[in-house]
Amino acid sequence: MPEPKQERAVRTRQAILTAAAEVFEERGFRAATINEILTSAKVTKGALYFHFSSKEELAQGVLGGQDLQSDVPVRACKTQELVDTTMLHAYRLQTDPMVRAGVRLTLDQRASSLDRTGPFRRWGEIAGDLLGKAQAQGELLPHVVPAETAEVMVGAFAGVQAMSQAVCDYQDLQQRVSALLRHLLPSVVLSSVLTSVDLTDRRGERVFRESRQHDAVPASVS
Amino acid sequence: MPEPKQERAVRTRQAILTAAAEVFEERGFRAATINEILTSAKVTKGALYFHFSSKEELAQGVLGGQDLQSDVPVRACKTQELVDTTMLHAYRLQTDPMVRAGVRLTLDQRASSLDRTGPFRRWGEIAGDLLGKAQAQGELLPHVVPAETAEVMVGAFAGVQAMSQAVCDYQDLQQRVSALLRHLLPSVVLSSVLTSVDLTDRRGERVFRESRQHDAVPASVS
Repeated sequence: MPEPKQERAVRTRQAILTAAAEVFEERGFRAATINEILTSAKVTKGALYFHFSSKEELAQGVLGGQDLQSDVPVRACKTQELVDTTMLHAYRLQTDPMVRAGVRLTLDQRASSLDRTGPFRRWGEIAGDLLGKAQAQGELLPHVVPAETAEVMVGAFAGVQAMSQAVCDYQDLQQRVSALLRHLLPSVVLSSVLTSVDLTDRRGERVFRESRQHDAVPASVS
Repeated sequence: MPEPKQERAVRTRQAILTAAAEVFEERGFRAATINEILTSAKVTKGALYFHFSSKEELAQGVLGGQDLQSDVPVRACKTQELVDTTMLHAYRLQTDPMVRAGVRLTLDQRASSLDRTGPFRRWGEIAGDLLGKAQAQGELLPHVVPAETAEVMVGAFAGVQAMSQAVCDYQDLQQRVSALLRHLLPSVVLSSVLTSVDLTDRRGERVFRESRQHDAVPASVS
């Protein structure tokens, strides 16, 4: 059982990040100030600087909010695991303000003092790793270069989510990401594998529920 | 031959739009002010308001800077025309600051008073129209729905360019867009058609040179 003091620190850190995410969303990275984040988080200056030493560090914390892929259950079929990772991210983007703020900050072209390549790089590694495993298991077409396909998938996902945000504030995000995968995967995965992969637009929510049950097990055991 | 007065008006309008593009790039739409644009454009307030009545109208002018697809020469193969339109846009994005500013403004999620859906919608229509023609000519796989594929292509392009901008300021944009098309088109176009389509990363520059020669012809005739 964690100590109350640690618990409080975790909660304070989370409150600061949530406030920072809101202020970055509202004002943009460059215009946002630490004072605005302080006011919105309702914590002391000392508490904020204990956790984060600069606006850049706060932004890195928000950018990190989208690094949650480890929740996706391991699948025998690595193509399905890649689809699940993608669709779960789409579902979270639609439903979790922190994930949304991280993605928007990644696409904030004026945040030039910020290393925004991190999320692109990390998502590229995750996708490249899963594609490499899929290739080793013989799921992919022979010409596929996992690193190249991973870059295409991550870039395309970033744009499809931006378009969904611009045209309808994410209401059709699941459908758009499902359509993207239906367009990309036939050039990457053997059709005999694809026939048993679930690419439907409800997949993200299903994986999310599954991962919640998964998380719940150790908690109830301990 | 156009009158000098009209010529001057066109030049003034262009100078204002170029200045507006720079200021929006630098400050973002929300933070930018008309006064900053005035200072940068070196025109009088009267001249600016003669052409544009508000910051929103200026932004619409900048957004319109990416609507230049009509320069792509008509092709017998509509798939090639779609590829040429896409690769020319990538080339322009890499080389023309006005096109770049328009695309960035489209992805500026804080420009909420601005209708940013225009470019997405217009590119969607252009791609959908070309895919419809390709379908009518029997170039596409039987299951393809042109409007859906067009949305996927436009969204994916938007993200691939954003990723290229974030990781290397557009240096690898042509390669990334070529890779995107190589991943998307096999799910859309008959392989017998694709074998004679040029998808290489030099295509954009080639089409640009061709369109310049094309433009030069009527001018030298008149």
